[in-house]
This record gives sequence, structure tokens and C-alpha cells, in this order.
Amino acid sequence: MKAKKTEIRLADGRALYYFDEREDAVRAAHDPRDLPRTTTQSEIRWDPLLDQWVIIASHRQARTYHPPPDQCPLDPSRPGRQTEIPAEDYDVVVFENRFPSLSSAAVREVTGDVDGVAEPPPDGAGAATFFTREGGVGRCEVVCFTSDHDAAFPSLPPSRVETVIEAWVDRTAELGALPEVAQVFCFENRGEEIGVTLSHPHGQIYAYPFVPPRMRRQIESARRYRDRTGECLHCALLQAERDAGDRIVHETPLWTVLVPHAARWPYEAHVYSRRHVPDLPALTEEEKADLAEVYVDVLRRFEALFETPTPYIAGWIQAPAHADRDLAHLHAQVFSIRRQAGKLKYLAGSESGAGVWVNDITPERAAAQLRAEPV
Amino acid sequence: MKAKKTEIRLADGRALYYFDEREDAVRAAHDPRDLPRTTTQSEIRWDPLLDQWVIIASHRQARTYHPPPDQCPLDPSRPGRQTEIPAEDYDVVVFENRFPSLSSAAVREVTGDVDGVAEPPPDGAGAATFFTREGGVGRCEVVCFTSDHDAAFPSLPPSRVETVIEAWVDRTAELGALPEVAQVFCFENRGEEIGVTLSHPHGQIYAYPFVPPRMRRQIESARRYRDRTGECLHCALLQAERDAGDRIVHETPLWTVLVPHAARWPYEAHVYSRRHVPDLPALTEEEKADLAEVYVDVLRRFEALFETPTPYIAGWIQAPAHADRDLAHLHAQVFSIRRQAGKLKYLAGSESGAGVWVNDITPERAAAQLRAEPV
Repeated sequence: MKAKKTEIRLADGRALYYFDEREDAVRAAHDPRDLPRTTTQSEIRWDPLLDQWVIIASHRQARTYHPPPDQCPLDPSRPGRQTEIPAEDYDVVVFENRFPSLSSAAVREVTGDVDGVAEPPPDGAGAATFFTREGGVGRCEVVCFTSDHDAAFPSLPPSRVETVIEAWVDRTAELGALPEVAQVFCFENRGEEIGVTLSHPHGQIYAYPFVPPRMRRQIESARRYRDRTGECLHCALLQAERDAGDRIVHETPLWTVLVPHAARWPYEAHVYSRRHVPDLPALTEEEKADLAEVYVDVLRRFEALFETPTPYIAGWIQAPAHADRDLAHLHAQVFSIRRQAGKLKYLAGSESGAGVWVNDITPERAAAQLRAEPV
Repeated sequence: MKAKKTEIRLADGRALYYFDEREDAVRAAHDPRDLPRTTTQSEIRWDPLLDQWVIIASHRQARTYHPPPDQCPLDPSRPGRQTEIPAEDYDVVVFENRFPSLSSAAVREVTGDVDGVAEPPPDGAGAATFFTREGGVGRCEVVCFTSDHDAAFPSLPPSRVETVIEAWVDRTAELGALPEVAQVFCFENRGEEIGVTLSHPHGQIYAYPFVPPRMRRQIESARRYRDRTGECLHCALLQAERDAGDRIVHETPLWTVLVPHAARWPYEAHVYSRRHVPDLPALTEEEKADLAEVYVDVLRRFEALFETPTPYIAGWIQAPAHADRDLAHLHAQVFSIRRQAGKLKYLAGSESGAGVWVNDITPERAAAQLRAEPV
């Protein structure tokens, strides 16, 4: 199944893409709002102690924050109330964030040219190296999973999940083809407990101008492993987990859901493609159709852990856009910060200060709970 | 000034240390509680993808959680109510956490012997390497800054802060001398917003059996810099920040408080010793006395940012206990997750999923606010 994609421009010039499940969908509605272009002062700064980039996005303090339910900017438009989506209904919609952490506009304002992905500063000393900063080039997009304000991802039918996957595939390929984008990251934050201020079911896509630390460290580990063994570290880990079995949550012939042996979060599951593929665009139609079932199944397992909706973060670890693509192995990471009903795992001194995670639940027990076994 | 240290044992065998400001203090009170020894099932597991240890401490789910104010376990004892501190009053007290993430007991139960710090697994493949785990050896201690339940660190007099520093110095030296401890981390979490469940003014000390990721990455950066230039990276960075000036918050001849150029958090300050010293025990009496003033001053600056008490995490980045000591440079990191009155910075998809921090406030503006300049 392929969704029908239609591109339009919002009143301030931002791109919006409809992904329709019906081939005869017509997307003629235009955005009549008088919407000024927002200016961004986003930049990236190099941290020479921790050897990584940090995004400074000072214009975002004014962003939308817990709007009343009748003012949701992700609802379809209706007579008398224009939202971010001009149409009166939609299946899946992706559009550029009005308050982006990264944008093509930013770099032009801050440093002049778009000239490829950001590189760490050359070896050197003094302020010229220590205070390296560049424009916050890249893209931040919003993905609306459904026009139904009161729905949630775990309640979507697999056919809709397939459309969401099509949107992720499209955006990963299109954004990853930009010379200034090094990594495309599709993710969803769900729940007020992790700071979500819009309850409408939606996710985000960040197209970073550098390879983020988590992906970079995995690439480095995979490179060392391949240099030594000639094999993919992820493939070997996946096989070892399947042999052990006690942290496997769910399997199909094409996908494996597992809790990693050294899980950081009280409830954390990784959704692994069994085939060695770099990213979502590399999946076959059969793999995507199966993924739709597997992905919504794992979210439903998270949903069933507690009596109230489980807050979670879900994100796709894909290959970098232009380098080391064979060292990556597509997987999603889904985790919750809730450790018991009414209790959250906070990142305090050990985690945020020293970088050491303390997990209160054994991965084997978390896997059993996600399998819905008595523990 | 030197505090008087007295060691006692609590009813279940845990150590407690009084640090008294009066040389004639007598600490004869014993702990009459019938307190069973807690068992710990703490272990550390190696993450082969991210190349670091994670602590799994499943016994901690039962730990004390928001006790009512009249049940605070950190208050002094009084007739009819025994707390963790047997005495009727105290200045500064340190004791072993009853629900520790790391403990000497853990390793004996889990793997048998204490035999030095934890090392990453040797190169290899398969479950033997991928599923490396060891006992969660180490120590977790609680530091009570005052017997006054309703006080807060920013309101302590400098003389008391000197006593707290003496306690940190003592514990860093004593725990760092243990063969199984690789890093001593003294820190304070403050505020319900970051999960603090005991409001009594207190901090914690973690003695890790490995060098935590944050410290390890700084050591690696410093090693590369020294190999190239022969100099300390921190000394060079500190000089560059002092030359630039716009992120300096406060200075004395011995200490500099600055907001780093690539700050991750809305409000983040680093308190740097100007002299190249590895850790708190290496400070002179003069440096400690000055630090007492400087440290409480920076906490008061954080306190003045908002109308309600500022939640913060404060921790000391010290040298590893047994290796690479000259590559470290003592500094404290103090940061708040509050980005505006009533608004927190959450670690969501970008931070927790990809490892990329997005900071909404420029470091220069944060420094101006901490200097209490109009912005």
C-alpha cells in the first residue's frame, strides 16, 4: 500500500504534506491566515569537553504551550477556526514546525551558506576552536497521526500505522537527501509527564546537521566490532538475545521486540528489523506491513502496563544520511519514564550529572510484564 | 577550620559519620532501633552499543517516598521517634543509604569477590561478552547539610558550607582509597520537579566501580588536547572564557563561576578552581574557605532567578580515584531544569532518544541573569 502524497505551502511559506489513504483525495484547501514568517536564531555550539554539539534555540521560549482543547493547532480547520492544517479532515499530515529547533532559514541568517553537514572543529586551541558555533541548519517537522484529537497512537488501526510509516519513509528519504542533513530522527513524545504540551496524537521529525551522540556511539561500537569480526554488532546482539530468550517480548518472522540486557529505563523495548537494513526507506512492502502490526502491538503492550495511559518516548535509530550507513541497523527504541503507578523515573544527579543510569526494574522482569506474564 | 569527625554504626551495621563544628562535641547516642539488614540485588551491566555501564538496582522500588513531614528520616531523633540520625542535634552527618544503588554488600552476594574496579568486557562476541554483568559494588551515602528540616542549602551560613566541604573532602579521600571504587561523585538534587522525595536539605555521594560516562568523555577530550598541546584542556578553556568575559558570572582570585559556551541546560553554571587540582581533597585551606563563599553564592544566584525555590542539580566533577588524575580539573556543575516560571525543560525525544540537547536560553543571557543584570 502506498499513500498519496500532496504538498502545499502554509501562509508563511512552510511546507505541508498530506499522506492520504484514498487515491482520489483532493487537497485544494489553502491556508488563508495572515501568518508572519517566524524568525529563528537557532545555532549549534560545540562542547569541547563532551565532544558533541548542543542546539541553542532561544526563540522557542514563545512556542505554543498547553492550548485549550478547542484551540488545538493540529485539529483540522473548520469554518471560523483555521488551524495549522487547512483541510477539514486528513489521514496523516506532516508540516514544518512553526517554532523549529533547526531550520534552513536559521543557517542563512546566522552564518550565510549551507555547505554540508556540520563537522567538529579542527584540532586547535583558544577561543577560535573552543567557541565553535554554526547556524542551526536542518529541519523540524510535525507528524499528525490522525485528525481525531482524542485518539492515541496505540489505538490506531494497522492500516493507519502503515500510512504513518509511509510518511516516515518519505521524510527520511527526502530530508536525508539534503546535503546539510546528517541524520533523520523520527520520534514521538507522549504524555504530560515528559513535557508534551499538545495532546493531539502527533510525533516529530528532526533532521540534524550532525550525527547525534547516541547514533554516533553505536556507529563507533559497530565499527570496532566489524573490524574485529567482520560482522554487524546489531545482528550478533539480536541473535544472542534470541538465543537467550528471557528478554524477548514479541516476534514475527521479520521483526523482534526485546528489552535490552542493559536497559536504562524502567520499561524499554527495542523493535529490531531481523534483516540487516540501514533505515525505514530500505524496508520491503512486506516488512512495512508487518511492522505496522508489530509497532502498534508494542505500544499497546506499554499502554497495558498501568491503569492510566503510559507516558513514553519512541524513536527510530536509523543510519546516518551520508556516511557509515552499513554500520547501522534499523531499530526503534520505545521507553517509559514511569516506574510504578504514580511514580516516575527522574534523571537526577547520577543520570544528568554523571551520565550513569540507575534502573529500578530488571530487564527480565520488564520483558515478562510486556509479555503480559504474571510476575 | 577542620570539623571533628566521629564514626558510629547504625542498628543494621551501616556507618554514620558526624562532622561537628565544635571540637568538644560528644557523640555517644546509639541507634536503638530493631532494624533488619536490607539486602541489595544491585548489579552493573555493560551496554555494548553505547559502550558504558548501567546500574540495575531492582530492590530500590521499596525506598522511602515522600514521607509526611513529621516522619522525616533525616531529622535528629527525639524521645519517641528514632530517625536515621540517633543524636538530638547535629551539624553535618553522612551515612550509608539504606536503599543503595551500589554497595559493598551487593558484590559479595552477586559475584563473590571484590577485586578492583569494573573493566569493560574484553573484545569478543556472543553472550559471554554481550551480557556482561557484575555485582553493583560501590557505596551510596547520604549527606545531611543541617538538622533544620526547613532550611535549604542556599540559606546556609558559609561556616556550615565549610563543614559540608570538609565532609565531601573526607568521603572523597576515604571512598576513593577503596580498591573497588573508580570515581567518587558528590551531588545534590533539589526540588520535587526533579524527583526529590525528601525535602530535608541533603545531598548524596555515589562511589562508582567505574568512571562514569561524563567524566570518562572529559578525560578522553583532555587526553587528546594534552597530547597535542601539552596543556590542560580545562585550564585553556577557563582562560578562554575569562578572556571572552560574557559568560562569567562571578570571580574571586581562586575561583571562577561561568556559564559554559555550549551549556545544555536553561541555567547552568560551572564553578572552576583556577588552580589545576584533581579533586576536593587537593584544595588548600584558603581555597576551601573561599569556595564556601563562592559555592553558596552561586546557589543563591540560582535561588534568585524565580519567585519560588529553583530546582537544581549540583555535582562535583572530580578526578577518577586511581587513574588519569592529572587529566581532570576540579569543577562543580550546577544546573536547573526550570526554563521559565512554571515551565520545565524536559528531556524528551531529542535528548533522551538521540542524545542531542536543545537549550532554549542562550548561555550569554543565562550568565547575565545569574549576574543579576537586566536582560
